Amino acid sequence: MRDALGRLSEAERHELMAVAGALADAARRETLAHFRSDSLGAESKESLRFDPVTVADRASERAMRAILALRRPFDGILGEEFGPREGTSGFTWVLDPIDGTRGYLSGTPTWGVLVAVRDATGPLFGLIDQPYIGERFAGGFGMAEVVGPMGRKGLRARAPRPLSQGILFSTFPEVGTPAEGAAFARLAREMRLVRYGMDCYAYALVAAGQIDLVVEAGLQPYDVAAPIAVIEAAGGIVTNWQGGPAAGGGQILAAANSAVHAAAMAALNG
Amino acid sequence: MRDALGRLSEAERHELMAVAGALADAARRETLAHFRSDSLGAESKESLRFDPVTVADRASERAMRAILALRRPFDGILGEEFGPREGTSGFTWVLDPIDGTRGYLSGTPTWGVLVAVRDATGPLFGLIDQPYIGERFAGGFGMAEVVGPMGRKGLRARAPRPLSQGILFSTFPEVGTPAEGAAFARLAREMRLVRYGMDCYAYALVAAGQIDLVVEAGLQPYDVAAPIAVIEAAGGIVTNWQGGPAAGGGQILAAANSAVHAAAMAALNG
Repeated sequence: MRDALGRLSEAERHELMAVAGALADAARRETLAHFRSDSLGAESKESLRFDPVTVADRASERAMRAILALRRPFDGILGEEFGPREGTSGFTWVLDPIDGTRGYLSGTPTWGVLVAVRDATGPLFGLIDQPYIGERFAGGFGMAEVVGPMGRKGLRARAPRPLSQGILFSTFPEVGTPAEGAAFARLAREMRLVRYGMDCYAYALVAAGQIDLVVEAGLQPYDVAAPIAVIEAAGGIVTNWQGGPAAGGGQILAAANSAVHAAAMAALNG
Repeated sequence: MRDALGRLSEAERHELMAVAGALADAARRETLAHFRSDSLGAESKESLRFDPVTVADRASERAMRAILALRRPFDGILGEEFGPREGTSGFTWVLDPIDGTRGYLSGTPTWGVLVAVRDATGPLFGLIDQPYIGERFAGGFGMAEVVGPMGRKGLRARAPRPLSQGILFSTFPEVGTPAEGAAFARLAREMRLVRYGMDCYAYALVAAGQIDLVVEAGLQPYDVAAPIAVIEAAGGIVTNWQGGPAAGGGQILAAANSAVHAAAMAALNG
C-alpha cells in the first residue's frame, strides 16, 4: 500500500478518510441519542475537577471501536474511554468520543467528536465533528474543508495580524497551573479579544480562518490529534508552548500562522 | 382585538407570533449572508470594551424594521442599532439583530437574533434564534418550544437542585463592576460547574432544562426581553439581582426555578 518512498497510495488515503468518516458518523448517532435528554447519567472521573463521563461518551467510543475491529483490524487505537490497542500496521486511530463533556452535559453546541489517524510521523488526517449542528471539519492528505449548514467550503487559517488585533480562545479562564495561568494572562492582555467555552470548536475556528489563537494546558493526546491535522491542513501551526511537538498533549498553542505563533510564544514565555 | 378584560384575541396572538417568526426569518438571511465571510467590517462602538457593530448587525435590524413598517405600522420598536420608534397600539417590538457580536465575529454558533413583543405588562412573546444551527427557541402566549436539528420539542426549565449540583453560565468571566464581579464570584464558588462564552444561547439552555442559572451585568433592555419571554414560558424566572423586574436590563439573574433563584440571590447578595 506504500510506494518505494514509503508514501501512501491514493487508495489507502481514501480508505483511511472513508473509515474516519464512518467513525464520526457512528459517533454522531450515539452522541445525539443522549444529547439534551433527561436520562443523562454522569459519573465523576476526578474529584477535584468536574469531568463527567457519560453513557454517550462510552457508547460513542464503543461504536467507533466496533467499526475499526471490522475495517481496520491491524491498526492501533488510542481512545479516551477504553484502554489502548496495539496495532501492527503502523497506523493508530486517536479517538475522543466527546471532547467537551462539560459542554455536552450543559447542552451547548460546541463539544465535538475527534477522530484522527496517525503514523510514526504524527497525525495524518483528522476530523472535528459537531453532531448537533451537523458540521464536520476535515484536514489532511492535501485537503482541508468543512461541510455543514452552509454547504462545503475550503478551510484556510487567517493571515498574520498583530496580537492587538487578534482573537484568542481557551476553554475556561482557569488555565492550568498558577504558572501556566500567569503565562496565559500575559498573552491575554495583548489580545484584542479573549473568549472561553468553545471546547474543540475553538480549534475548528482557527482552521476556518475565524480566530488567531487557541491556548490550553493539561490536554491529552486524544484531545489534540484531530485539531493538529485539521489546523495544519488549513495552513496553521500547532505546537506546545515551547514550539515543540504538540501530539503528546500538555500545553497547546494553536496558531493561524507562523507570525502570530511566534508572537504568542514570546508572550507566553516572557 | 382585546376582550372586555383586555386579553388578546387568539387571532391577535397568532398574528404577533407570525410576525415574530417573519422577523427572525429575515434576520437569519441577513446575518448568515455575512457570517464567516472574509469581508466582515467592524467598527468599535466603545473604546474601552470591544463591541463590534457589523454590517450584518445593521442589515439584520433594517430588514426587521422594514417588515414591521408593513405589517405592524402602529407598534413601537426598540432596537439595538437604530433609534426607538414610538407606537400607538400599546405593543413594542424589542429587537437585538445580533446578540453576541463578539461571538459572531469569531465564528461561534452561540450568538443569536432576539425578537420580542411586549406591552405595558412586559414581554409577551419572544424568540431566541440561532441562524447557523437553524434553531429557534420560542416562548409566550402559553407555548414554549424549540425547533431545530432534532425537530420540535417542548421547553421546560429543570427542577430544583442544590447550587452544588447546578450549572451557571455567564458570557465572560469579567462580570460587571468590581463589586458585581465579587458577587458573581461568591455565587460561582457554590456551583458544580461555571461556563462562559455562550451569549444569548445560555438563556435558551435555561429554558431547555439544560442548565440552572445565567448571571450577567450591564445588559440592555433589548438583550433581555426575548430571554425573559422564553424562560418564563418554560417555567423559569428572570429578575434583576435583587429579585425585581429584569426587563430594564442591568444585572440579570435567570433561573430554572424559584428555589435555585432564591439560593442564587442569597449568594449574590451575601
